[in-house]
Amino acid sequence: MVTTFQSAQLALDLVGVFVFALSGGLVAVKKRFDLFGVLVLACAAALGGGIVRDILIGAVPPVGISDWRLLAAAALGGLVTFVYHPEVGRITRFVRVLDAAGLGAFAVSGSVKAITTPGVSPIAAVIVGLTTAVGGGVIRDLLADQVPEVLRRELYAVPAAIGAVIVVVAAQLGALQDWVMWTAAALVFIIRLVAVHLDLNAPRPLRPSRPLS
Amino acid sequence: MVTTFQSAQLALDLVGVFVFALSGGLVAVKKRFDLFGVLVLACAAALGGGIVRDILIGAVPPVGISDWRLLAAAALGGLVTFVYHPEVGRITRFVRVLDAAGLGAFAVSGSVKAITTPGVSPIAAVIVGLTTAVGGGVIRDLLADQVPEVLRRELYAVPAAIGAVIVVVAAQLGALQDWVMWTAAALVFIIRLVAVHLDLNAPRPLRPSRPLS
Amino acid sequence: MVTTFQSAQLALDLVGVFVFALSGGLVAVKKRFDLFGVLVLACAAALGGGIVRDILIGAVPPVGISDWRLLAAAALGGLVTFVYHPEVGRITRFVRVLDAAGLGAFAVSGSVKAITTPGVSPIAAVIVGLTTAVGGGVIRDLLADQVPEVLRRELYAVPAAIGAVIVVVAAQLGALQDWVMWTAAALVFIIRLVAVHLDLNAPRPLRPSRPLS
Repeated sequence: MVTTFQSAQLALDLVGVFVFALSGGLVAVKKRFDLFGVLVLACAAALGGGIVRDILIGAVPPVGISDWRLLAAAALGGLVTFVYHPEVGRITRFVRVLDAAGLGAFAVSGSVKAITTPGVSPIAAVIVGLTTAVGGGVIRDLLADQVPEVLRRELYAVPAAIGAVIVVVAAQLGALQDWVMWTAAALVFIIRLVAVHLDLNAPRPLRPSRPLS
Repeated sequence: MVTTFQSAQLALDLVGVFVFALSGGLVAVKKRFDLFGVLVLACAAALGGGIVRDILIGAVPPVGISDWRLLAAAALGGLVTFVYHPEVGRITRFVRVLDAAGLGAFAVSGSVKAITTPGVSPIAAVIVGLTTAVGGGVIRDLLADQVPEVLRRELYAVPAAIGAVIVVVAAQLGALQDWVMWTAAALVFIIRLVAVHLDLNAPRPLRPSRPLS
Repeated sequence: MVTTFQSAQLALDLVGVFVFALSGGLVAVKKRFDLFGVLVLACAAALGGGIVRDILIGAVPPVGISDWRLLAAAALGGLVTFVYHPEVGRITRFVRVLDAAGLGAFAVSGSVKAITTPGVSPIAAVIVGLTTAVGGGVIRDLLADQVPEVLRRELYAVPAAIGAVIVVVAAQLGALQDWVMWTAAALVFIIRLVAVHLDLNAPRPLRPSRPLS
């Protein structure tokens, strides 16, 4: 069982890492960073969420700096962006699909790791899952000196939160099986794609903004 | 004794969390973030300082992600701002008073938690208390892509540092009692309000800035 | 042996802290922060890399908040900048030399501390060393609301990575002696200076950037 968990979790992690490395690399290319900057931003976007997760649950050193497979996937994503960026950029639509896949993968792998760590409460596991999913993107945007997309864009964190809640509820019911994890990840993926497609957004403050201070 | 500590610390924490959630929400409203962005920024401002505190002293998972009361207070502050933001904004003066209260509450609760954690030296406890008090605001401003106010504004961190020093000295003397904690928080509150009222600032570099590099 | 390690590591740390405090203070002066802002930015630049290092390897509370010698060196660097900033700014060239020294000192001290911590793998130790060396500068630039220099500048992280690799390989071979540490730090220093002198840069994305999304 533990083995199954670990292999499913690793697979989800690798998917998320590679995809978010592409997103980080693209932002770096747009900002005209050099090769090292592209690699750093790719790795920060790909590994940042998992590193924050591991710090929050006390699993140090984080796997994001000690597991060569994750590091290699992140660096590969950065290199691919550096070399093929016009192609990668042209297929923005495809990148968005991948990004939604990464969101689902990280929301599930993050909350699974948290809820199976002794001493982590269910509510903390949900928040850790959400943080894993959106954390890399936030770090990417902070380093690139732009307001994090998650604060401005169509429903991005809500699907991730749904996925984390499913995982934690399943774990509480003793029903956290492999297929539950993959289904939860798929659900996040689909909800996110629907939100992008319909251009759904969370509500904004209703009244026109006036000078507030 | 421990119980008293814990209840006073929780009360101080709840005050600080709610008030800083209002400040984070207001910044998000000004930046025209959507509902989720307002909630995230409110939670980041409200819980960020305590999360950094707990990471620094090794108390993971941080209470800021595992105690539902703190999470609820933060979310409530964000929702209040989202719904009533013109009113909240109009009463900027009142928000400043609340903000000063939050500063005092966090400086004291942060340094109390640090100095009562085994292995944390007095100097570290002071810095942890200061970080707890100003950390949430720094994270709020980083996410909102603006220079942290604490680096630019009238005396903000100095009162917090005074409160943390009082707590740590009292703890070293074995005199850390409930009334000491509340008095220290009140003192931070009053010094901060006086600084705002008199528009006191720390000194700036004296000579006019010339192009330096 | 351990004593030697610790004293060499402390010496390297003190050099790095003081020098990076100067760099943080200078950025703050340019941004016209007040005295407290200068001190905060100096301390963040000087101590941030080491604090992140200690969080990543689980050595909490971090020495950067508990060792008064490091705190004093950071504050001293900030004060020196605040008082003498025109002189410090005029000698930008000298500051760059110092900065290169700090880079070497931190890359070595960070990877030594990581590789001698139980449970930290060699690859993690290299990344921790690199993070120690560049982390303070990244935090400095985030707080000052500018894109981190390490993402934009001439070869900055590469020499640090080389130094960290040397330390970790030496440790794996059981040959991590004092002179190895100082030689590695000197090598980083020299490579960095040569890169500045020759204006060497890592390659940039080749094709002209087009609107990518």
